[in-house]
Amino acid sequence: MTSTIEPGLGWDPTTLHQRYDEVRAYTETLAAPLSPEDQTVQSMPDVSPTKWHRAHVTWFFETFVLADNEPEFAPFQDKYWFLFNSYYEGIGPRYSRPDRGLVSRPGAHDVGCYRSNVDDRMRDLIDRLDEGTLTKLADTIELGFHHEQQHQELLLMDIKHVLSRNPLQPAYAGSPPPQSTPDTMGWVEVDGGLVEVGHEGDGFCFDNELPRHEQWLRPFRIADRLVTNGEWLDFMADGGYRRHELWLSDGWTRIQTEGWAAPFYWTEVDGVWFEHTLHGTWPVNPGLPVSHVSFYEAEAYATWAGKRLPSEAEWEHAVVSTGSTTGDGSTTGDGSTTGDGSTTGDGSTSSSVTGNLANSTSWHPEAAGPADGGLRQVFGDCWEWTSSAYHPYPGFHPPAGAIGEYNGKFMSNQMVLRGGCALTPAGHARATYRNFFPHQSRWALSGVRLADDGAGAAA
Amino acid sequence: MTSTIEPGLGWDPTTLHQRYDEVRAYTETLAAPLSPEDQTVQSMPDVSPTKWHRAHVTWFFETFVLADNEPEFAPFQDKYWFLFNSYYEGIGPRYSRPDRGLVSRPGAHDVGCYRSNVDDRMRDLIDRLDEGTLTKLADTIELGFHHEQQHQELLLMDIKHVLSRNPLQPAYAGSPPPQSTPDTMGWVEVDGGLVEVGHEGDGFCFDNELPRHEQWLRPFRIADRLVTNGEWLDFMADGGYRRHELWLSDGWTRIQTEGWAAPFYWTEVDGVWFEHTLHGTWPVNPGLPVSHVSFYEAEAYATWAGKRLPSEAEWEHAVVSTGSTTGDGSTTGDGSTTGDGSTTGDGSTSSSVTGNLANSTSWHPEAAGPADGGLRQVFGDCWEWTSSAYHPYPGFHPPAGAIGEYNGKFMSNQMVLRGGCALTPAGHARATYRNFFPHQSRWALSGVRLADDGAGAAA
Amino acid sequence: MTSTIEPGLGWDPTTLHQRYDEVRAYTETLAAPLSPEDQTVQSMPDVSPTKWHRAHVTWFFETFVLADNEPEFAPFQDKYWFLFNSYYEGIGPRYSRPDRGLVSRPGAHDVGCYRSNVDDRMRDLIDRLDEGTLTKLADTIELGFHHEQQHQELLLMDIKHVLSRNPLQPAYAGSPPPQSTPDTMGWVEVDGGLVEVGHEGDGFCFDNELPRHEQWLRPFRIADRLVTNGEWLDFMADGGYRRHELWLSDGWTRIQTEGWAAPFYWTEVDGVWFEHTLHGTWPVNPGLPVSHVSFYEAEAYATWAGKRLPSEAEWEHAVVSTGSTTGDGSTTGDGSTTGDGSTTGDGSTSSSVTGNLANSTSWHPEAAGPADGGLRQVFGDCWEWTSSAYHPYPGFHPPAGAIGEYNGKFMSNQMVLRGGCALTPAGHARATYRNFFPHQSRWALSGVRLADDGAGAAA
Amino acid sequence: MTSTIEPGLGWDPTTLHQRYDEVRAYTETLAAPLSPEDQTVQSMPDVSPTKWHRAHVTWFFETFVLADNEPEFAPFQDKYWFLFNSYYEGIGPRYSRPDRGLVSRPGAHDVGCYRSNVDDRMRDLIDRLDEGTLTKLADTIELGFHHEQQHQELLLMDIKHVLSRNPLQPAYAGSPPPQSTPDTMGWVEVDGGLVEVGHEGDGFCFDNELPRHEQWLRPFRIADRLVTNGEWLDFMADGGYRRHELWLSDGWTRIQTEGWAAPFYWTEVDGVWFEHTLHGTWPVNPGLPVSHVSFYEAEAYATWAGKRLPSEAEWEHAVVSTGSTTGDGSTTGDGSTTGDGSTTGDGSTSSSVTGNLANSTSWHPEAAGPADGGLRQVFGDCWEWTSSAYHPYPGFHPPAGAIGEYNGKFMSNQMVLRGGCALTPAGHARATYRNFFPHQSRWALSGVRLADDGAGAAA
Repeated sequence: MTSTIEPGLGWDPTTLHQRYDEVRAYTETLAAPLSPEDQTVQSMPDVSPTKWHRAHVTWFFETFVLADNEPEFAPFQDKYWFLFNSYYEGIGPRYSRPDRGLVSRPGAHDVGCYRSNVDDRMRDLIDRLDEGTLTKLADTIELGFHHEQQHQELLLMDIKHVLSRNPLQPAYAGSPPPQSTPDTMGWVEVDGGLVEVGHEGDGFCFDNELPRHEQWLRPFRIADRLVTNGEWLDFMADGGYRRHELWLSDGWTRIQTEGWAAPFYWTEVDGVWFEHTLHGTWPVNPGLPVSHVSFYEAEAYATWAGKRLPSEAEWEHAVVSTGSTTGDGSTTGDGSTTGDGSTTGDGSTSSSVTGNLANSTSWHPEAAGPADGGLRQVFGDCWEWTSSAYHPYPGFHPPAGAIGEYNGKFMSNQMVLRGGCALTPAGHARATYRNFFPHQSRWALSGVRLADDGAGAAA
Repeated sequence: MTSTIEPGLGWDPTTLHQRYDEVRAYTETLAAPLSPEDQTVQSMPDVSPTKWHRAHVTWFFETFVLADNEPEFAPFQDKYWFLFNSYYEGIGPRYSRPDRGLVSRPGAHDVGCYRSNVDDRMRDLIDRLDEGTLTKLADTIELGFHHEQQHQELLLMDIKHVLSRNPLQPAYAGSPPPQSTPDTMGWVEVDGGLVEVGHEGDGFCFDNELPRHEQWLRPFRIADRLVTNGEWLDFMADGGYRRHELWLSDGWTRIQTEGWAAPFYWTEVDGVWFEHTLHGTWPVNPGLPVSHVSFYEAEAYATWAGKRLPSEAEWEHAVVSTGSTTGDGSTTGDGSTTGDGSTTGDGSTSSSVTGNLANSTSWHPEAAGPADGGLRQVFGDCWEWTSSAYHPYPGFHPPAGAIGEYNGKFMSNQMVLRGGCALTPAGHARATYRNFFPHQSRWALSGVRLADDGAGAAA
Repeated sequence: MTSTIEPGLGWDPTTLHQRYDEVRAYTETLAAPLSPEDQTVQSMPDVSPTKWHRAHVTWFFETFVLADNEPEFAPFQDKYWFLFNSYYEGIGPRYSRPDRGLVSRPGAHDVGCYRSNVDDRMRDLIDRLDEGTLTKLADTIELGFHHEQQHQELLLMDIKHVLSRNPLQPAYAGSPPPQSTPDTMGWVEVDGGLVEVGHEGDGFCFDNELPRHEQWLRPFRIADRLVTNGEWLDFMADGGYRRHELWLSDGWTRIQTEGWAAPFYWTEVDGVWFEHTLHGTWPVNPGLPVSHVSFYEAEAYATWAGKRLPSEAEWEHAVVSTGSTTGDGSTTGDGSTTGDGSTTGDGSTSSSVTGNLANSTSWHPEAAGPADGGLRQVFGDCWEWTSSAYHPYPGFHPPAGAIGEYNGKFMSNQMVLRGGCALTPAGHARATYRNFFPHQSRWALSGVRLADDGAGAAA
Repeated sequence: MTSTIEPGLGWDPTTLHQRYDEVRAYTETLAAPLSPEDQTVQSMPDVSPTKWHRAHVTWFFETFVLADNEPEFAPFQDKYWFLFNSYYEGIGPRYSRPDRGLVSRPGAHDVGCYRSNVDDRMRDLIDRLDEGTLTKLADTIELGFHHEQQHQELLLMDIKHVLSRNPLQPAYAGSPPPQSTPDTMGWVEVDGGLVEVGHEGDGFCFDNELPRHEQWLRPFRIADRLVTNGEWLDFMADGGYRRHELWLSDGWTRIQTEGWAAPFYWTEVDGVWFEHTLHGTWPVNPGLPVSHVSFYEAEAYATWAGKRLPSEAEWEHAVVSTGSTTGDGSTTGDGSTTGDGSTTGDGSTSSSVTGNLANSTSWHPEAAGPADGGLRQVFGDCWEWTSSAYHPYPGFHPPAGAIGEYNGKFMSNQMVLRGGCALTPAGHARATYRNFFPHQSRWALSGVRLADDGAGAAA
């Protein structure tokens, strides 16, 4: 990742301390509605138990910050080193990922003790930092903030899956949005040419957003809002899941072997489609963005609609060139339209934007607000599948050491998603952010924005 | 199962009420040391979560007793009907067994509420029973007691497995026995001829112990104690797990595919063998019975020792004809030698015997007591593999209705084990009891007693 | 196996030489209708390619006879030692069984050359045998004959499966029997008491038929013919495959996971059931014995019919005590009623019986002949599932060395079948013969004979 | 695909007839050394039996040319329509791909009859074509030529795999090249900027090579020859397969689960590495290009070497801009340097090039010829992994109908390979050709060419 510490930008110990507390507290806020039993279950290998998330993000600070900087460092618990390493080969052996749900101890409360202990040590370290060490360490600490935010989002996606497997149809929290109907989808025309993509400026970014580089784009147009549940019902009614000609071969195989016939969390009861949400199970809401669809489904839908998915360069260029980077009130769920730029001190084109606030009581995409000539629903609804494979940017080199495993080693068999979603913490997303999932993933809060060749792009 | 209600034998409402309270309380005693997280985990498909066991045995009373006899019956919770049905096709669809660990709700406390509710209703029903209904219902209620006792044993076997998967090597409770050395194995000669096997008399038995019938046995001899860990170490040192000629083909395949090289819970660290127990992980104790071995291992050991396993008829006949049915102090772990025959009113040859008491603080087989000419370690150490497939006795017919699924439908691909184990509740085992597991099972507390052809059996 | 060589019984070199030629020639006769491609395919792990069968039986003679007795022995081809070892761990490593169909070379013609080479060497050895060596070797040579006969039967079962996977619905040879209707099923009453089972006398038997020993039987009755296709259609029409209460739990699981809804080779086209046979695909013939059903299906059918399967001891005792050991014209397919007793010199109660001749042109069970007070369809129609697990007889010990792996190591997870089938070579079956397959096996030519408790067996 | 028929370019019936005969004959030439058994085996799901390839390419002409154009068309055999459809959903149901090796009939000879029949009908059709129909059909017929050529290459890759599974280590044909040592790897500097990629001109191309479009490239350098076996041995000696930091996560997982420790066909015997080839098993030849490595291995090697793989646009631009499109004598195996441009009438930058001739007697990559300032080993050695996912070019639309399934539906989870290999038929490859395989594929004849950022590309 790029250096984010610049003299005068505010990363003094007080700010760092305060930011640490905010990020850490939000994780516990998210876990609060969950019982010890809820926090223990792993419903599939992709999912991690809530208490594992809480411990792993703590392990991250202990491993990458405290271990090398704390005088007379000793791990809180030797075996935690093994249990809460996610995938860092450079750190050493680790507990089997698909078996995370088999570990009842440490329990939810024990994990809380682990968190407190590391919090005390981190605060102590931050307060003692001299300026030289600050320069050296703040990047890693800030990475720890963003890492924990990623797990905050994953925690919610994962508990959503856990609760979906329960025949009692339990809810996480909050209440569902009112039924709504889709408004009109508008199209934004974007010029092509030689454009720059990738992160720019002093704000934080992940290593995979660099280096900023040039790409040649043909003129294109892009939808100003996401595809809705109502439109998806039309696709289904038109045989969308039964017409092989709409599908990539790998997607068609999934339909045969896994019986896909609707988005991931939809079930049909007596002819009515219901959707499992974090608020419980409710009738599908036609005005909301469709969510929990795989890349294959997104691509098939686009084919059915006579359109295509945008490439990640197109998406980024569209968002930046139309000034859609600030987020909009309709998608944040908190009425805020200003973002929390003051926290990140980020004024670049890849600016951070407002997502949900910790005191939000709804955890779902929302209906698009009124059209305004730019892109709507960019950052706070659904991660948007692009047509781009998740590959390194030209000239990309991961950082040295175990931290270099953060992103680079996953650059195969995955597709890039852009934007952010209703579960993304406030201030976490930005226009250059590259999320990624395998083509078949459906448990992430993913949706679809259409694109098309522009007027000047005719073959 | 046979009728156990005889006028004057004590199944008056007061006795039934008291027995109900005892059995139900013991389950909660066993669950008490376990956290909500511990109670949630299912570490493999054969294992059920503790809170599932607690709910399922409650469902059993609700389904088979309350549903047809409670005025204006309504289930405590509709979906529990589905969640806590174990395998009764006749009751309706049920939740997938391998997914029991995915259900975080109802939590451990909720299950406690379910238990209290059913307890209240059961006590109310028992107190209101007129004599006619008593005659009709008491068999099923008593089956519910024995059913719950079976799950008490399973609960302990299952949590042992759950904790074994945890790298922190946690313990359930209690403390391990002192290290001991094996005493001499004695042999008891038993005459053959036409003998009767199967349950006799008025005491409770499961349907699979009937009908009592004749079998022709050749003279045989049987070991007066179980094979010890020390002897098993000799077997291993002699290449026991590497010599194909000792093994059934299916067992040899398991060695290849699953890497068997020692009993289930043994691990070698720097040349020393350790054993995971309910008391934590400790060096293997040479004087204790070997436990957690599969049928294949038991059979291979017997071949290596130049002996064989007893058939279930031999086992039963040996125990009954030598008067080894009462249990012995050395195996109960509580100093009691009298059993609890007064509770079951059972004076038959298949008498119930003393196992562990609820206030026991150790959960392991013990070293054999002094030789006394009879069989030692019969009921309170390890379930003993026999050479007999689990098949119906001649003339067996399961009861009508869903309760008929209790035992009969499992009569394929399993082997009979006899005796009882250190986890078996007091008063649960008896000489005619037929336990059964698949050949490859290792998570049950199973051990080995050797047999051999008798002097008069030469071909 | 028991010694079969007795002075004066005819195992002089000339007889041995002649018998060798007969057995070996019959294998090639069976393979003759099959193309090189047919002989190469392995359609599932249980199946072996025809050319593998042809080579393996040859390897058996080379390994167990020539290797230790031929001066300056050298294997025909070093790697054949590895390729054509079926399961003898004592011989050394072997080629993976499920991959036998991946080996295109040696081809069918090359295997013919291997056979010729070993034939020459075997004939040479036999002709040179002095009487002492004869006594020593003839048992193994005769075992080789019976081994090859077992593979003759397997070759036909296997190619039947291979051709069944081909959408062109090809036939092996011959023509189907005319449509027929079931005649009445009669019942034969058999006394119980202490009976002897197991092989007796000087004739050949496999080791698993020994030792002859006593068993106690209750009086029973047994059907005088097999269950027919027509009766099976009634079972199906009555929901046989949809009623859980008829099935063992493991069988019911197979129905769910593998979609069993009819015997193995049956398919329904426009409401008519067809059966794949070695003669091609034809409408199911109601008068013929049902075939290719698993143990689970046999057992469920018996439950549906209010009957049960016979134990292997009952089956053997019924056949011997009713004098049904000679076979009957209707089942041999060749009109012969005398058997080939002269070949085996066997006059014992476990006499060998007549099966199909090499010049038979039909390969299917036939309709039962007229009732005659004894058992019909005993040896030449379908292997008959019994209720007995395949376990060692009391006092059984396998022979020393690799040959001891022939039968004993398979004595788990299998059920005994008795009789013989339409594919069994003439002279191969006898009343004490113990065939065995796993409960779920369906590709073998297996059928169902019902039994029931006798009049004096009431509980 | 683009139209290839232009007036005057020579696609008169005579030329078409002659070209048909050439292509079809070459398939039979390749199959000639293979026995019926060899032609039957399918050694893994990715592999097809030789006789299936021979039939499928025939089915292609029957389905896409004859069916709509032959008067009173009837398929040669109804079921062949089902058996030999590879993956065209638009044509109808098809036989299961992983089961192709289970179909012994039609045999190799029967497939020959099928080929003859379709050949007669195709020749008849071609000879009868009026000019209008010619314009309409010739594209599809030419596609059939290129389709059959693709299967000629696959036939060889597949039989190589089949023979590799045989412990007898058989050879296909020909003799291995002499041992050689690697010469020096040179580097070619290539300017970046806005370049055009994709097919241009009148010659044949597949649909996935279109549309030609612009891409922005940074300056780069590219190796003038492929990585050699000798260099790969250095990589292995330096712990290449044991150092996680060199690998993508998915590749590292393959190493753990599949035990990768060397290229696919390499085995170590007593410290010496041997390679299975179509000429048998021989010591690894250090001067030859490494082959049968996956994308993960290619990428890890490049990381180890401090380099990277070229993108497909870089590869194409390098080949075209350096004039390396004609092939070179050292790689064709036949001494020809002129290509067969006269056959395809292709003078474009994506010109067809010379690969192996039918009369070649060696089937392996060769050592690089002398450096000449351009790229060596471009078309006749190994398919070269690029860093580009196999995605549609901007503006790509597959043709209508079943023929549209040819390429487009496979555009996920695969990587592009460029160039051609020693098994590619003469005249089949060209600079714009896009081959593709999943990241983990190793049975294809794939190799590695390194690239690096150019002098002007510094970050």
